[in-house]
Amino acid sequence: MRSHTRHLTFETRERREFVRITDDVQQAVDESGVAEGMVLVSAMHITAGVWVNDDEPGLLEDTLEWLDKLAPPSWKEPANDVARELSPDPGDFRHHRGGEDNGDAHWKNLLVHHQVVLPITEGRLDLGPWQAVFYAEFDGRRAKRLVIKVLGE
Amino acid sequence: MRSHTRHLTFETRERREFVRITDDVQQAVDESGVAEGMVLVSAMHITAGVWVNDDEPGLLEDTLEWLDKLAPPSWKEPANDVARELSPDPGDFRHHRGGEDNGDAHWKNLLVHHQVVLPITEGRLDLGPWQAVFYAEFDGRRAKRLVIKVLGE
Amino acid sequence: MRSHTRHLTFETRERREFVRITDDVQQAVDESGVAEGMVLVSAMHITAGVWVNDDEPGLLEDTLEWLDKLAPPSWKEPANDVARELSPDPGDFRHHRGGEDNGDAHWKNLLVHHQVVLPITEGRLDLGPWQAVFYAEFDGRRAKRLVIKVLGE
Repeated sequence: MRSHTRHLTFETRERREFVRITDDVQQAVDESGVAEGMVLVSAMHITAGVWVNDDEPGLLEDTLEWLDKLAPPSWKEPANDVARELSPDPGDFRHHRGGEDNGDAHWKNLLVHHQVVLPITEGRLDLGPWQAVFYAEFDGRRAKRLVIKVLGE
Repeated sequence: MRSHTRHLTFETRERREFVRITDDVQQAVDESGVAEGMVLVSAMHITAGVWVNDDEPGLLEDTLEWLDKLAPPSWKEPANDVARELSPDPGDFRHHRGGEDNGDAHWKNLLVHHQVVLPITEGRLDLGPWQAVFYAEFDGRRAKRLVIKVLGE
Repeated sequence: MRSHTRHLTFETRERREFVRITDDVQQAVDESGVAEGMVLVSAMHITAGVWVNDDEPGLLEDTLEWLDKLAPPSWKEPANDVARELSPDPGDFRHHRGGEDNGDAHWKNLLVHHQVVLPITEGRLDLGPWQAVFYAEFDGRRAKRLVIKVLGE
């Protein structure tokens, strides 16, 4: 059995950003020498996620707009009435009593999920033709880490 | 260490459909000879998911109705005012500028998640009594693939 | 290759409850003797989930309130108009025709996801400083199980 670990660090320019990391994950697989196995790609923060989807800018913009309705920030005005009603009932997140302002990023982490596991077949990520791997940052502009763990033979 | 890979192809009759695949996953485990390990079950498309839940038709119908409110299609009328407000602000998905009409299926993929990892104990899927594995199709009527990757000993 | 399995049982006092299990997962890793690998933490029920996030009571309360809007129970009044519109159109869950009242817990299971896979590096869960592992109970007050499966070397 072989295993291999790689940590990536992101410091996005925007507060929220999708960063394509498919090639970084494949590179970790290459380094591992694993031909058949799995690779775990996992954000090490509670305000970020990992999403496997289409590398199409329109869709990514649609998705961030939508996540801001489902999991509304309190650091800007709610996008509409639905976002207002989905906001915390006390008017702001209880979580913000400690001085934070990123409660929405925790909720986006829940919806997107913080990790994925990808199959490795014959040394390659066994993905469909449109599947790209994204690190999904929801509270960026500071150094944040992600771990890639390869397991197989 | 043993590993085993199996690809399934689905071509659903309906645009959206839950397809029970528990037995297919168990069969892949049987083929692998793995007694202790994990099995990854992963849609290879960005408009489908995998859900482990109850094989109860009422619940599956409830869930599709609900997903159409949370992640509203633009190829039919929004189900109600909430669905309308959760729809993209420009009136349609930016993603549809390229001629697609399946933006909602990408969002359902995000909510449902495209993959699960299941435990294998003594050669069997170590599931609870009501846990069934479903391939969740959100943009079907064409051939789509899923990969099953077994790892263990 | 080494593997190790541990089952936990929960019987929460409240119907809904987040139970921190980071130490239980680390203990299973310790028992396994695995230094490099992965550990799967998976609810064996279709009305529970596993979430990796912040052990901060305000956030957990925010999150339960929010999940009750996105995935509204029918055993109590909808929290507001959005929760009312996200409730099943027939007035109650089709799923409840069999006598159940926990349809919302199935939906919360979908949003939260029933399992996570965590990396193990040098014998420790390779988590970020604020990542805690929670069993998320959405229909408790009865014995429910979770499986921990460690795989690695």
